[in-house]
Amino acid sequence: MDDVKEILVKYSSIIKKEIDDSLSNIIPKDLNNASIHLTNAGGKMLRPSLALLTAQVVGGQEKDGLKVGAAIELIHTFSLIHDDIMDDDDVRRGQAAVHKVWGEPLAILSGDILFSKAFELVVSSKDSLGCDKIVNSLDTIAEACIKICEGQALDMGFEGNFDVNEDDYLDMIFMKTAALIAAATKIGAIAGGANDNEIEILYDYGRLIGLAFQIHDDYLDLTSDEDSLGKPIGSDIAEGKMTLIVVNALEKANNEDKEVLLKILKDENNSDEDIKIAMDLFNKYESIDYANKIAKRYVEDAKNLLDVFDDSDAKNILKLIADFVLIRDL
Amino acid sequence: MDDVKEILVKYSSIIKKEIDDSLSNIIPKDLNNASIHLTNAGGKMLRPSLALLTAQVVGGQEKDGLKVGAAIELIHTFSLIHDDIMDDDDVRRGQAAVHKVWGEPLAILSGDILFSKAFELVVSSKDSLGCDKIVNSLDTIAEACIKICEGQALDMGFEGNFDVNEDDYLDMIFMKTAALIAAATKIGAIAGGANDNEIEILYDYGRLIGLAFQIHDDYLDLTSDEDSLGKPIGSDIAEGKMTLIVVNALEKANNEDKEVLLKILKDENNSDEDIKIAMDLFNKYESIDYANKIAKRYVEDAKNLLDVFDDSDAKNILKLIADFVLIRDL
Repeated sequence: MDDVKEILVKYSSIIKKEIDDSLSNIIPKDLNNASIHLTNAGGKMLRPSLALLTAQVVGGQEKDGLKVGAAIELIHTFSLIHDDIMDDDDVRRGQAAVHKVWGEPLAILSGDILFSKAFELVVSSKDSLGCDKIVNSLDTIAEACIKICEGQALDMGFEGNFDVNEDDYLDMIFMKTAALIAAATKIGAIAGGANDNEIEILYDYGRLIGLAFQIHDDYLDLTSDEDSLGKPIGSDIAEGKMTLIVVNALEKANNEDKEVLLKILKDENNSDEDIKIAMDLFNKYESIDYANKIAKRYVEDAKNLLDVFDDSDAKNILKLIADFVLIRDL
Repeated sequence: MDDVKEILVKYSSIIKKEIDDSLSNIIPKDLNNASIHLTNAGGKMLRPSLALLTAQVVGGQEKDGLKVGAAIELIHTFSLIHDDIMDDDDVRRGQAAVHKVWGEPLAILSGDILFSKAFELVVSSKDSLGCDKIVNSLDTIAEACIKICEGQALDMGFEGNFDVNEDDYLDMIFMKTAALIAAATKIGAIAGGANDNEIEILYDYGRLIGLAFQIHDDYLDLTSDEDSLGKPIGSDIAEGKMTLIVVNALEKANNEDKEVLLKILKDENNSDEDIKIAMDLFNKYESIDYANKIAKRYVEDAKNLLDVFDDSDAKNILKLIADFVLIRDL
């Protein structure tokens, strides 16, 4: 995994410069500060790095994916800022959330301006990429943004709705999480000069690792330790959040166990004992293993998709990144 | 003005159909409902109508401006939804504001998805308009969106800041209001096949009528009657809002009058008598006349810009619309 970390460190510094250039002339000063708050707070820049890599795996150059990749990171940042307002989350990337520092109005605006800047950034590479690639890239970003909004609305609608089945759940995490990662791998392919078939394959690669990431994120909530997770183990259970593990357990459980689990999920004041009972049920029905297996299958499928491409450093890194999503979050 | 109203009624129905098509497949249902709430609540659709007209004035067809114009209306609607959250306004177009019906999270999301749909809509006319026009249009929209965000942030920053001078004020209303109207007239020109010079002229036409509209809006607040305004006369004074009239009066007033006016503007509980004193000061320093003259000059300048184009019905309507902004709001 050292190769992955090394390449992410290298890429994140050149992508960060691109983002800083794009945001430097925002006025007034407080909107500028609010807009750069999260991009200055770190972040592994995995999405734009994927764009740089998919540009190369199809025979293009690193720089082809730079502006379009940076645009994806701006979209990601915009969605984090607005999500934190919607969920009233206090902390993001170890910093106070934007709306906690500048208030909701300026946080809404900073999200909106990052969104706008993403499109400006793509258009700014018109001369180097050419008109067709730009339109294709903008279409890709617009489609991903629509899906992100729909996925977030679906996720909010799932709260307190325990009839969600596995397909509903997978559709939701595709829209909310995987669509933008897939947009990143697709947009890099477009910029790198891929043909339609290659573009489709790399979109699918992104979709699969995106799904695996989200499922793994839910898995970590139950199996990690509190220090590395940054929140109490089982907080998803406490919040009654629908995850693949919960969906699977509810589908498999006998009536008695299902009733116990639903009571815990609906309870807003779970004890540690409640969390343990839920965990025991997940183990009884092998739901944690099930989710883990699904995530691993997605990762293997994603890696296999890359076989059509000629061997290259970029291809190796893309395979490693697929494994990486089951080790650390994006 | 009947010609203007007739053309707006005709255009708004075909633009509305375009918008309905674009928004029809949004999921889930509550996000869909929140997203179509304002577009179903009426609205004169002046911005997209301007795009249809500028497409024709440069020799293109009505339909050339249709999708790009509808995209501008989506951007306008997105900005209204987010502005209403920021200002916590209850009513828009005679209906409850989106966040009052569906709550802030879904209102933020519905704004975001309209924003995304605007870009999707422009890209969808790629086959009819061609790649270059699409990229130019998307660039125009992205630039306008950036300005809208900056203008809204500047406007919020002006609250309680009575050192704002005329240039600051005009810059702010250009960004907040005129930039999107200018984008509409520019995007129609692009779609209609205008050359660079014609595009620039029609952008400027939109900018000037946009400035005139905003100045006239502030003027109406003081000189209209409560029934047609839908809010008490002088509410801008009561709220201490910076308008061209206020900026002008503060620049011209002697120290004693300035102190009186500032006290009223800073007071959150003005009496009718206070409003009358402020009005008397605006009259004493001829600031209402001044603002009115500036707005009229912008309108005349806008109309004169159209002289370079061949005579046409579209050109006549564009001249009438310039006058129209000083009669009714957009």
